[in-house]
Amino acid sequence: MTRNRRITLAKRPVGQVTPDCFATDEVELPTPGPGEVLVKVGWLSIDPTIRGWMAMDTYLPAIEIGAPIRSGGLGEVIESNNDAYPVGSTLFGMTGWQEYAVMGAGSNVIPDGIDPTAALSVFGVTGLTAYFGLLDVGRPVAGETVLVSGAAGATGSVVGQIARIKGCRVVGIAGSDEKCAWLVDELGFDAAINYRTEHVGKAIRAACPTGVDVFFDNVGGDILEAGIANLALRGRIVLCGAIATYNDDAPRPGPSNLSLLITQRGRMEGFIILDYMGRANEAIAELAGWVMGGDLKFAVDVVDGLDNAPTALDRLFTGANQGKVIVRL
Amino acid sequence: MTRNRRITLAKRPVGQVTPDCFATDEVELPTPGPGEVLVKVGWLSIDPTIRGWMAMDTYLPAIEIGAPIRSGGLGEVIESNNDAYPVGSTLFGMTGWQEYAVMGAGSNVIPDGIDPTAALSVFGVTGLTAYFGLLDVGRPVAGETVLVSGAAGATGSVVGQIARIKGCRVVGIAGSDEKCAWLVDELGFDAAINYRTEHVGKAIRAACPTGVDVFFDNVGGDILEAGIANLALRGRIVLCGAIATYNDDAPRPGPSNLSLLITQRGRMEGFIILDYMGRANEAIAELAGWVMGGDLKFAVDVVDGLDNAPTALDRLFTGANQGKVIVRL
Repeated sequence: MTRNRRITLAKRPVGQVTPDCFATDEVELPTPGPGEVLVKVGWLSIDPTIRGWMAMDTYLPAIEIGAPIRSGGLGEVIESNNDAYPVGSTLFGMTGWQEYAVMGAGSNVIPDGIDPTAALSVFGVTGLTAYFGLLDVGRPVAGETVLVSGAAGATGSVVGQIARIKGCRVVGIAGSDEKCAWLVDELGFDAAINYRTEHVGKAIRAACPTGVDVFFDNVGGDILEAGIANLALRGRIVLCGAIATYNDDAPRPGPSNLSLLITQRGRMEGFIILDYMGRANEAIAELAGWVMGGDLKFAVDVVDGLDNAPTALDRLFTGANQGKVIVRL
Repeated sequence: MTRNRRITLAKRPVGQVTPDCFATDEVELPTPGPGEVLVKVGWLSIDPTIRGWMAMDTYLPAIEIGAPIRSGGLGEVIESNNDAYPVGSTLFGMTGWQEYAVMGAGSNVIPDGIDPTAALSVFGVTGLTAYFGLLDVGRPVAGETVLVSGAAGATGSVVGQIARIKGCRVVGIAGSDEKCAWLVDELGFDAAINYRTEHVGKAIRAACPTGVDVFFDNVGGDILEAGIANLALRGRIVLCGAIATYNDDAPRPGPSNLSLLITQRGRMEGFIILDYMGRANEAIAELAGWVMGGDLKFAVDVVDGLDNAPTALDRLFTGANQGKVIVRL
């Protein structure tokens, strides 16, 4: 009899996520109720926000101890009580880190012809985050300078390319010379800064001589401070995430130069992509056009095996990944 | 022969503004050029931003060593080369800390019937700062909760009253029980917090049970952090000033909880009132209506004598003032 293997939350992380935060178990297959379906999970979306869900209540309640790790994922319907989700179709939703999941009305059918890696990256939450965060919150104008941190990551790499498509000068910050070369040579960034080897503040100043009009920040911490220090008049800072700080075991002080937001008439604004899901199709249509036209490239960093999901999550925090981290079951 | 007594910048402040930052001198009366007028200065507007101008380049160049302290003020025209500014009229402009000043095309005539204290406070830069900062940047909606720091100051006291007029619940933060009583009993605030005797974070939570929709912050530092901690979903923080930090001799770390801007979809935005001067009449018309109707009160803290201008400036930083600090020459 088939059992459902799961990776569950054993304890909440304090500081760095350690292997003992996770446990594995095998339970009976869940049974879909009315309107629900049972899926065999094929792919998992590995996102920095999972660290937050493991630790505490944020914009969603914390994962319960003993429950499977909450995670987006793709699954193939193998048993259906819902005509909208026939057996054989592929759904995106919150599958969690497990082999089988029950999914319900909030799931999205992935159309035939869309590769799972694209569905989980450029056409998934990552692509939508880049699209709405940059265009709706940052509101860049052609000719402006856009700075992106975490630029070789799943979101940052798409942000920079959209900014380029919209006619902006684009500067990325990433953690290796290889990533920087990829940003400039493959993705069309105008410049890239290696934060591990360069003085970030000086490098931003050199790469953005007229200042930063839009700073899309995935990182927080010192890099956020360096971005604020180089803000152009009426610059906007899009707070997408703060991966540099997620593993802190105590709150760290924020940027010491917030008063520059006053003198520069700056705006700093956070957002959560869940608020934009009702407008997803609008974004996906435009993203698909860019992908088809060859203007927008996406990279994936695939890790094989459910049991390696914790390792895959760790790649985000060490910066090992280039593009979207995905687990293939 | 009449001489022009001035208070000049002797050295730039490091940390607290000390008496040796100032010098006095007497020079020949300046001569107005074509289009200019000579005024006898009657009143000075004492504002926290003067501390910044003394120290360094900000949104305006730093005051030069040996030059009179830059300051708004009112003067009566005693010699005119400009028909728009006849002898006997009262002008508002950057008089500086001196007995006589040459003023030019950028000056504003104060209409007859407007008291100098009103012209320098509720109808001056202070009132405009409150008006545009709250309504244009903070954008409160009737029924929302507005929190104001530095609430008994010139700007904060007007901000809170405008918010009340616009149908908001208003909570002020000030530095004495007497000021708090004044905010509630005289100005119609719904609640007031004494930051010297109360735990500000807990007091905000108690006074704003549904969170803070708009936080108009004049103070910065720990009070800014406490406001962020209580931000409602889609809350806005208007950065008007950071008087708590102006006397720091080194940059102090910022709020450790900026990631709440992400989870709460918050916006933090700075502004400089100079950008709104073209729309001043729009604000003054509405402010005048409220003053005439008895809905909007203003308080002034008058210090007599040019030589006491440094003492008057100090009142802002010790929090001795209630309302707008003005020097009467």
